[in-house]
Formats: sequence, structure tokens, C-alpha cells
Amino acid sequence: MSTVNAAPRGGIDLGGTKIQAVVVDAAQAVLGQARQPTPTTGGPEDVAAAMASAMAEAASHAGVETDALAGVGVGSPGDVDSARGTVSSARNLPGWEGEFGLGAALQEALGTRAYLGNDVQVATDAEAVLGAGRPYRSLLGVFWGTGVGGGIVLDGRPWTGRGTAGEIGHVVVRIGGERCGCGRLGCMEAYAGRASMERRARERHAAGEHTDLFKIMEERGRTRLMSGVWSRALKRGDRLATALIDDAIEALGAGVASTQNVLDVEAVIIGGGLGVRLGQSYADRILQAMLPHLFDDAHPPAMHVAALGDLGGAIGAALLAQAAPERPV
Amino acid sequence: MSTVNAAPRGGIDLGGTKIQAVVVDAAQAVLGQARQPTPTTGGPEDVAAAMASAMAEAASHAGVETDALAGVGVGSPGDVDSARGTVSSARNLPGWEGEFGLGAALQEALGTRAYLGNDVQVATDAEAVLGAGRPYRSLLGVFWGTGVGGGIVLDGRPWTGRGTAGEIGHVVVRIGGERCGCGRLGCMEAYAGRASMERRARERHAAGEHTDLFKIMEERGRTRLMSGVWSRALKRGDRLATALIDDAIEALGAGVASTQNVLDVEAVIIGGGLGVRLGQSYADRILQAMLPHLFDDAHPPAMHVAALGDLGGAIGAALLAQAAPERPV
Repeated sequence: MSTVNAAPRGGIDLGGTKIQAVVVDAAQAVLGQARQPTPTTGGPEDVAAAMASAMAEAASHAGVETDALAGVGVGSPGDVDSARGTVSSARNLPGWEGEFGLGAALQEALGTRAYLGNDVQVATDAEAVLGAGRPYRSLLGVFWGTGVGGGIVLDGRPWTGRGTAGEIGHVVVRIGGERCGCGRLGCMEAYAGRASMERRARERHAAGEHTDLFKIMEERGRTRLMSGVWSRALKRGDRLATALIDDAIEALGAGVASTQNVLDVEAVIIGGGLGVRLGQSYADRILQAMLPHLFDDAHPPAMHVAALGDLGGAIGAALLAQAAPERPV
Repeated sequence: MSTVNAAPRGGIDLGGTKIQAVVVDAAQAVLGQARQPTPTTGGPEDVAAAMASAMAEAASHAGVETDALAGVGVGSPGDVDSARGTVSSARNLPGWEGEFGLGAALQEALGTRAYLGNDVQVATDAEAVLGAGRPYRSLLGVFWGTGVGGGIVLDGRPWTGRGTAGEIGHVVVRIGGERCGCGRLGCMEAYAGRASMERRARERHAAGEHTDLFKIMEERGRTRLMSGVWSRALKRGDRLATALIDDAIEALGAGVASTQNVLDVEAVIIGGGLGVRLGQSYADRILQAMLPHLFDDAHPPAMHVAALGDLGGAIGAALLAQAAPERPV
């Protein structure tokens, strides 16, 4: 009974490092986009203001006012309550331990309805509907960035469990192993998450190991080891960077293979900052590292890099605003 | 358009150690049952003959002829092709590396149609429909016995992936860890499967560690460390048995928690020879061992022992013969 609104829609990918906003048309073509750094101080209100500002800039590039958008979707970290429009426990964002009414704040600032979803699931859905996952009915999205997130599509539909399915970063790869950012021991993310890799790089550098990682970081005007810094160091053959990436791939091999042994999906899509930056040759290395642990190693899943790249999260978020009128939020 | 056949149905659980057969009525009540040891020599024909013999005995106890059964369902290990009625790569069964037409062999011997399914998924479906899983829409069945098998129900339906989903025994819990019966390193089953536990017990006993495990085994006229042997040794406080069970529970804690971090189901049902024998207090210990690894540790899944006990696999197999007329096999 609902009519499809053909007006442009907005999508915002809220990351720990950056806020990416897009405006798309009914065919999901990107009409405008903008990016802003995620505030590192202040609180949820400041983050919401930066999101609204990025969205306004993307809309301006698309030649529309934000209140003319059919809606704005948001892919958010933390615990997202889509029905209530709230986000809590977003630990990578400043002062966001408690609950914040992100939906209401954005609606107020943008003059159009906001729809919230989980960042990783939204990016997975985007790949399933528009990207590398289109040929498949079942897939696992692996988002390899600051942490390691996972999104699941089974039989053509997202599987979110009771709300926290797909937490593949916290699949255990080594009982009693390295401490993860989450506080637990031996999680895949403790070896493969960029935040963990940076922590270990700093420790080993401080202990006297040579590396160009921090020199490259400074040359690029960064204060953290972003994906581009790792990529450059690897191309230069930096020994510490290579060793830490090898550890990460070993952990991804075990953790993604374990997940595949449980789910037996048709395809794995590798996204996230590191996944997209390092590309297909590293996706292939992850598959090679999976093989010794895959139960059905005669039929490994197809392995692709996320086709929507950096914009996938934001484009997927915009899908929320499209689908929303036809399903309960 | 199909009519439900109200005649009794047969169900056979084909295990590496024993063959359990049941005859059930339309309400799934057990009318007769029989058990035979699984042949350890010969080939698939001999196993099929033992299965037919067990089924005939169960039917005799139920007061029916096997050709009067509406059908016979089979829960089988190995690679099961339900449509073709074949089983291959059943490595725990004698001479069963290749493909064997088990369905046709049983139909010939029993005079009624045979329906094949995966042993672990069949037992999980039985718990979901008739057992401890009835209150839940999503659950994970953990079958802790010779190996560790897993069955998945999501949104009320079995999830089997491309055919090998739920292989939780081969979730990696320690990269580079102990060698598993499957040949891989660090699988959960390498620590928690009864076959692996027995191998380690024999090694440590041979190396001089004291244990009553093998004395109890001999007293019971066994040649392997069956679940009852472990249970008795644990009750006596046997130090080696306790240490190996502690290792098993640590591995189950990590591996089942990893699986829950992926699936986020409502409940975990612990079945299998050891799971059923050791009961709820050990299921609770597994949950305690999961907590340090559970991402959503504020909402752990409900944890139950399989309610259908030892007969669950066979009763679940009989469900195949009920459902079969209404779905493609």
C-alpha cells in the first residue's frame, strides 16, 4: 500500500575516525558526498552536529536541501535501538557510554526523518544488495578496520540474532591469548584490529624494533596508524609492519574460518578501512590462511573485496531510508 | 494437499558406537525401541544390515511389521545427500569413505521408504520441536560426544548453509594448538571430543600419570572410554579425568561462546553422550566458561541439557519421515 518516494535520500556512516555522508537517488547513484573527522572530544551532541554538518554539505553538493530528502539513514556503532532512535555504548565515540537520542537530534537538525541501523549490518546489506554480494543468497561481511566487525546475510535476509549477531571480532582464536580492546583475551580483533595492531607496533617500537610506520604517519600529518600508513609501510617492506600484518592475517584466517564452519555461507566480502585499502591480494591471503581451518576445504566460500569501497557504509545507510516506509522501525 | 499418514514411523540414529532405533506414533510417543552396537569391521552393507535389524527389533517391540511403517528416517554422520539417499565420507564407520546408497538398502530390507538427514541437525530439530528448545525461535544444539557436533535453528527453521553449517567442533580455539581427529590444529574438538580426550588420557597414562579411567573401563567390559566411564571417574575425583574434562570445558567455553558471538541465538542445548550423561551441572559449567568470551555477556543464551536424552537423535530421525511427504527430499 506504500508508494515509493523517489526523492533523493541521505546516508551517513558514523565511524570512530570519520563521518561519511552521501546523497543518493532512487537507483542508489551517488549525487553528492562529504566527509568530516569524527569529533574526539565533547559528547554525543557534538557528534550529531558534525553528522548534520556532513549531511548538509553532501546535500549541497547534490543540489538539494536536507529537508527535501525522503529521509536520512545512519549506520552507527554501539547498541542501536532502531525503533526508539537511540544509540548507547558507542565506546569509540566521545562521551557516548550512555543512551543518546541520535534520531531525534538529526531530525531536528536536518528537517527530515532519520532511520538508525547497525553500521556493520548496514554495510553488509549494501554489499549484498548493490555490491560484491549480489550473486549470493548467503554471505558474511568482514569489516577489517579499527576493529573487526561482521555482518550476516542468510537466505537473502540479514541475520541479526537478538541484536548482536555477527560479532566476529570477538571470536576466540587463542584461549588465553592477547588482550583485546574489549578487555577479553584471545579475540580475533586483538590480533587483527587496527587499534590493536597500532598498540603492538608502539610497544615494539618503544622496545627498540625498527619501523618506518611512525615516520610515515608523521609525514602524512596523522596521529594514528591509518590504513594508508600500513599500506605504504607494507609496500616499502617494513619488517615490523609486515610481521604485524602477518599476525593479523593468521588471526583472520582462523576466526573467519571458524565463522564459516558455523555458517557455511556462499561468499565472504572483505570490507573496512584495511580490507578495502589492501585489496584483493590480501583478501586472497586471508582465504589461504582460512584453508587449514576450513571444515569444508574442498568448497571454500567465494572471497571478494567490498565493491562499494569507502562509501558502502553510507550508501547502505541510505537504503534504510528507502526500506523504512515499508517495514517497522 | 497432502494427507498426514497416521501410521507409526521409524527413526534410526546411526552413531559411531551404537545404532538406536525407535518406532513412534503420530504424537511422537515411543512405541518401541532397540539398540545395537555399530559394526566396527566390514563395510556400509554390514552397517545397513545392523540398522535394519535394530529397526525390525524396535518394530517388533511396537507390535508392527516394518513394512507397515509410514516411513523410516535416518540421522547419519558423514556427507548426507537426502535427495539421492546416499551417504559418503562417514569416517567413523567401517569402510565408508566412498558413497553408499543407504536409503535404497534400507528400503529393500524394511519394505518402507527411508529418508536420510544429517545426524546432528536431526537431533537439533527434535530438541527444537519436541524437547528443550521448544520455547525458542533460535537455538544452537551442541552435541558433546565422540566428537563435537552442532545444529542450528534460526527463526524457527534449520540453517544448514550449503550443507555443512554447524561444524562447531572445528571452530578454532587455539591457533597452532592440539591436533584434532580431523587432522587440523587447535579445533574445539581436539580438546573436547571424547575420542581426543581418550587419546590424551592414554598418552598421559602411558607416560606414568595415575588414573582409574582404564580400570573402570575394564570393569565395565569396555574397550573405549565411554561417557559412563568418564562420569564414574569424575565422581571418584580421578585427577587425570578431572584435568582432561577441565580442558574440554575450557575449549567448549571458548568455542561455543565464539559461535554465540556469531549467531546470537536465544538458547544453547547441550546433548551428545557426554552432554546428556554429565547433565545440567556441567552445562552450567560450560556457560561459566563461555562468559569470559561472550560479547553480549549481559545476555547469555539460556543453557539446557537435551530433554530427549539418548533417544533424541532417533526421534528426530522419525520426524524426517513425517515431514517428508510435504517437502522435497
